[in-house]
Amino acid sequence: MNQIPTLQSFIAGQWIGSTAANPLASAVNGKLVYHTHAETIDFEQSLDFARRAGQQSLLAMDFQSRAACLRALGKYLIEHKETLYTISTHSGATRADSWIDIEGGAGTLFAYASLGRRELPSGNLIPEDDVIPLGPTGAFAGGHILVPRRGVTVHINAFNFPVWGMLEKFAPNFLAGMPCIVKPGSSTSYVTEAAVRLMQQSGLLPEGSLQLVIGRTGDLLDRLGGQDIVTFTGSAATAAKLRVTPNLVANSVMFNAEADSLNCAILAPDVTPDDAEFDLFVKEVVREMTTKAGQKCTAIRRVLVPADKVDAVTEKLIARLAKTRVGDPAIEGVRMGALASHDQQRDVHHQVEALMTSCERVYGGTADFSPLGEGASNGAFFEPTLLLCRDPDAEGGAHDIEAFGPVSTLMPYRDIDHAIELAARGKGSLVSSVITRSPELAARIVPAIASWHGRVHILDAEAATESTGHGSPLPMLKHGGPGRAGGGEELGGIRAVKHYLQRAAVQGSPTMLTAVTGEYVRGGQTYETEVHPFRRHFEELRIGESLLTHRRTVTEADIVNFGCLSGDHFYMHFDELAARDSQFEQRIAHGYFVLSAAAGLFVSPGVGPVLANYGLDNLRFVNPVGIGDTIQARLTCKRKIDQGKESPKGDPQGVVAWDVQVTNQQGELVASYDILTLVKKQGVGS
Amino acid sequence: MNQIPTLQSFIAGQWIGSTAANPLASAVNGKLVYHTHAETIDFEQSLDFARRAGQQSLLAMDFQSRAACLRALGKYLIEHKETLYTISTHSGATRADSWIDIEGGAGTLFAYASLGRRELPSGNLIPEDDVIPLGPTGAFAGGHILVPRRGVTVHINAFNFPVWGMLEKFAPNFLAGMPCIVKPGSSTSYVTEAAVRLMQQSGLLPEGSLQLVIGRTGDLLDRLGGQDIVTFTGSAATAAKLRVTPNLVANSVMFNAEADSLNCAILAPDVTPDDAEFDLFVKEVVREMTTKAGQKCTAIRRVLVPADKVDAVTEKLIARLAKTRVGDPAIEGVRMGALASHDQQRDVHHQVEALMTSCERVYGGTADFSPLGEGASNGAFFEPTLLLCRDPDAEGGAHDIEAFGPVSTLMPYRDIDHAIELAARGKGSLVSSVITRSPELAARIVPAIASWHGRVHILDAEAATESTGHGSPLPMLKHGGPGRAGGGEELGGIRAVKHYLQRAAVQGSPTMLTAVTGEYVRGGQTYETEVHPFRRHFEELRIGESLLTHRRTVTEADIVNFGCLSGDHFYMHFDELAARDSQFEQRIAHGYFVLSAAAGLFVSPGVGPVLANYGLDNLRFVNPVGIGDTIQARLTCKRKIDQGKESPKGDPQGVVAWDVQVTNQQGELVASYDILTLVKKQGVGS
Repeated sequence: MNQIPTLQSFIAGQWIGSTAANPLASAVNGKLVYHTHAETIDFEQSLDFARRAGQQSLLAMDFQSRAACLRALGKYLIEHKETLYTISTHSGATRADSWIDIEGGAGTLFAYASLGRRELPSGNLIPEDDVIPLGPTGAFAGGHILVPRRGVTVHINAFNFPVWGMLEKFAPNFLAGMPCIVKPGSSTSYVTEAAVRLMQQSGLLPEGSLQLVIGRTGDLLDRLGGQDIVTFTGSAATAAKLRVTPNLVANSVMFNAEADSLNCAILAPDVTPDDAEFDLFVKEVVREMTTKAGQKCTAIRRVLVPADKVDAVTEKLIARLAKTRVGDPAIEGVRMGALASHDQQRDVHHQVEALMTSCERVYGGTADFSPLGEGASNGAFFEPTLLLCRDPDAEGGAHDIEAFGPVSTLMPYRDIDHAIELAARGKGSLVSSVITRSPELAARIVPAIASWHGRVHILDAEAATESTGHGSPLPMLKHGGPGRAGGGEELGGIRAVKHYLQRAAVQGSPTMLTAVTGEYVRGGQTYETEVHPFRRHFEELRIGESLLTHRRTVTEADIVNFGCLSGDHFYMHFDELAARDSQFEQRIAHGYFVLSAAAGLFVSPGVGPVLANYGLDNLRFVNPVGIGDTIQARLTCKRKIDQGKESPKGDPQGVVAWDVQVTNQQGELVASYDILTLVKKQGVGS
Repeated sequence: MNQIPTLQSFIAGQWIGSTAANPLASAVNGKLVYHTHAETIDFEQSLDFARRAGQQSLLAMDFQSRAACLRALGKYLIEHKETLYTISTHSGATRADSWIDIEGGAGTLFAYASLGRRELPSGNLIPEDDVIPLGPTGAFAGGHILVPRRGVTVHINAFNFPVWGMLEKFAPNFLAGMPCIVKPGSSTSYVTEAAVRLMQQSGLLPEGSLQLVIGRTGDLLDRLGGQDIVTFTGSAATAAKLRVTPNLVANSVMFNAEADSLNCAILAPDVTPDDAEFDLFVKEVVREMTTKAGQKCTAIRRVLVPADKVDAVTEKLIARLAKTRVGDPAIEGVRMGALASHDQQRDVHHQVEALMTSCERVYGGTADFSPLGEGASNGAFFEPTLLLCRDPDAEGGAHDIEAFGPVSTLMPYRDIDHAIELAARGKGSLVSSVITRSPELAARIVPAIASWHGRVHILDAEAATESTGHGSPLPMLKHGGPGRAGGGEELGGIRAVKHYLQRAAVQGSPTMLTAVTGEYVRGGQTYETEVHPFRRHFEELRIGESLLTHRRTVTEADIVNFGCLSGDHFYMHFDELAARDSQFEQRIAHGYFVLSAAAGLFVSPGVGPVLANYGLDNLRFVNPVGIGDTIQARLTCKRKIDQGKESPKGDPQGVVAWDVQVTNQQGELVASYDILTLVKKQGVGS
């Protein structure tokens, strides 16, 4: 045997650790593969580095440039993924298991890169909502901003997804602009170490933005303050222990927990053994039992089936489980690998024994189970095990005991209300699947169980063609559930970025709020220049830059012509009698005519920097425009988003949103909206 | 002396308590005014009542009807407000202090009533965001829903705002559909009891939706579960103690804390003693010191002033404080009343002594202070006290010690960075004020301090005309800050309602998601009827009801006519040469023409149930429309909001949003948007 390598922590820009400490064994054959390091980490130094170098380098960038960096990191990891696949085999994972971890992790970087580019502004401040007036004239107004917390995040992760588990937190955390310190679960920390090493080697990581702790967190949590965040993924018991760390409580340190839970899948009563959905259900249950050898916090632990279909379900599950080859993932045809460690193997064994006091064995867990592969008997394998709980209304048992391995328990239910009640008996889960053909049943079951679940996955034949499955958290959807599942929230699109930002309400005059938020607030100071704002390049435009157009009197001929051209002959525009009886008591101009005429007032017709008006938001027709009314528009530069050098197509350009107010001769607002444009950057031929 | 009344708890629909327990004294003259009751409360019964009767009655209503109920409750309280004003005098409050509490409380009910009506759907499920496709064809899609938590909220409130403190939590909590149990601070619980009595007497409160605990919470917190919520307002120390209640931790019970903090006001360096803002600053500081005798968790405790302006500020503060008459609020001209109890008086005295080890006295705190009024020497009065901390960089002192009374400490700062650093030394505050005339300074200071503050109030002469002040939380803006302030969040508009709802991601086929969310999801099943959907009344319309229109070929004449009519002669539509060089390589139709022509395709011209198209959201021009392209529109009923019987004007009506997709001859989407209409209800002549 070669020299056993010692894993290293990455602290304050240095890889540290050369003396071997705890041994880490291959889950496949029990052979020693790595050591953790014995050197203790100076967490004061680590935090100081994050707070200084980390924050400085991250806040020297902005949301858009960090999004671009995430994309580049994802690309680098994908280019070097085989390194990770190779190391990952020690954890007992099949290639398909590692795909979830490795490519799922890189995919999360890409997802947040794209989300950041699309939904976040330039700079390091997000105006979260439109500013609203707080007084009669709007001289005092208010809204909310989000800014990066001036602290450090500590991510304490589980062993089951050494890469994804880090990256699904790192991506939104990094995008938000906070440095982080990652502590992976020790038993598979060699895969995380390899991933961090790649990220560091890429040269893309801003200094201090990511540190890695192999081994214990020592006094790290005792050194955190009110701007710091701790996230934890793992068992509910450990979550509860960490949550009450006196220093975290004393400083109201944000603590986000995502704990294993007793997720269920419900076969709705409408599905018969002849339906495609019946087989989809069976397939989904087996997939959740065997993927990652059942070591997923989202795996289906409780299988809720109408009492009269328990036999039919059991039969099909057994048939499918019997075909699942378990053993060394290197062997062709193996579909399920090992648990991550012998500790896990022992733990699952104990939990199955505990479950057996209220359940009976239907499949697996036999003494003569022998996994495929040389040396596999020394590995951490566990046979897929299906139990049946005949009295699911009894206290405890399969509603409370989680075997974190390839173990699920069948539970018969009487009717829909009973199924809903049993689902809630998990006391809070990450996810539940409902398999049904009936939209009516879905509409009844899903809202009823939603308050106990972080995610509800509805499966039918249509969805199955593209379903990502019960067990897969997705970047765009929330991950985390109430109660036993820890009460935390991760992912969910831009929500996850907000977890790392501090929300502050801001109040003041519109001019002050424009300056603070970087977005024009109505009533704030405007700037009028000699040049039409549509003739200025992106960099030249200033927030508040404004154009008050010439006016236009709306005539009966306009209404007639517009109706004939559009084909819209609505009575409000054309039927004098009915219009007089209407709420407006007169014929009025088409709303879309007002919109079109306003464009006619403010458009600058020649070729210029404005490349396209690609959309419009928040249009409200505030007051009617009658024949003889004279309208005028004010166009004001409201928001600029600089997406950096990368442009999806063609010339370098930025996004500019314009506030439009159309008023009548009394100065009353008749229409209000934002228009969205793409504007060329300077130095590019117009 | 008359019989001293015993306060009662309102538990499980009954007023209980007749045996006197602890005495509660008038803060004005020390006379005994009430007793708490000695009877213990059966919290098992109370929780059971909330979980059964409370949830049932609340969920028999919906967001819209609960909003209407909040409005009626607010109206009832305002009609009976003098009862509350009378009782409130015992707490030492002036009429102006009580206004904040009583009318501020009722105002919060009105604010959430209006917010609910405007922003929430019918029913008891909120589709939080648009469903997005999760696979290439969209057969599997996902989004988020919010549903009422199936639990109980326990509100543990502070003594300083016995009415507002209850109602600012009750309003969003009730709107969300959760029953609650309120435990006010004992020393002023007689005002809360009176308010709850009024609410109950109104006959408007759904059974079990509100219970009141006078006295201790006993084993209440030990009986909560994963769907329940605890909110706490009070000291950081008590928050920390309650937060680690083992049962709350074990069940991940949501715990929201709002704690007193060492809020600051910053006089920016640009403001000179000659500016109006200088006087505004002085006035604001004194107002915050004296309103509610400084017993506000938002009060200004630290007054940050440029070192060279400390003397000028001090002089003006002293002058203003000297003019503040302190004593029995019944006396004409009295501007500051008593602390709420002798306990508070003692506590403030001790804290001022502690502050004196690092500060010097500038005004007040004298031994010979005598409040105005007969018997006032037996009251809980405290003289307004201004301190000066010459070394604000020293550890501890005024950054850490809070005297919860009319006490503030002046701190000199050197430059802006120093001011920002000192603001953060509070380790997390509810609010900070920045007084400046300079938008540039505001843009520099506000984002820098925002991560440590729940709210930042920018004051200048313009804002001052309508400013609600440093210390006033508003329903539409977030209340709550990081770190020492408890890390919680209240109010903030619709956010506060979401605190009481559980978010769940939902995934499935568009048809299933339409059924679950109650909103049409693209790709879901549509229904086409013989009748044009615009000719159907609100109740007749079904989600997914759809119209595929006839087609229209867009001609060069259309573009010419539309340009001439609108006045929009943008080169992309009219300049063949420039258009050929553009990204689209041809002249294209105006986006607003496409919008107008689509309306022409789907409008039903005669008088009918559709009363108005009042707006449009999320318009995106997805693909260009060239000359010769043939467009077609699909209009689908997406969302219906039934606002009940109350209509703002005219006939009973509901809000209907329609999904519009305009496609070309290849079936490609060219424009996508939602239109918003008002649709008449049935039984009303059309």
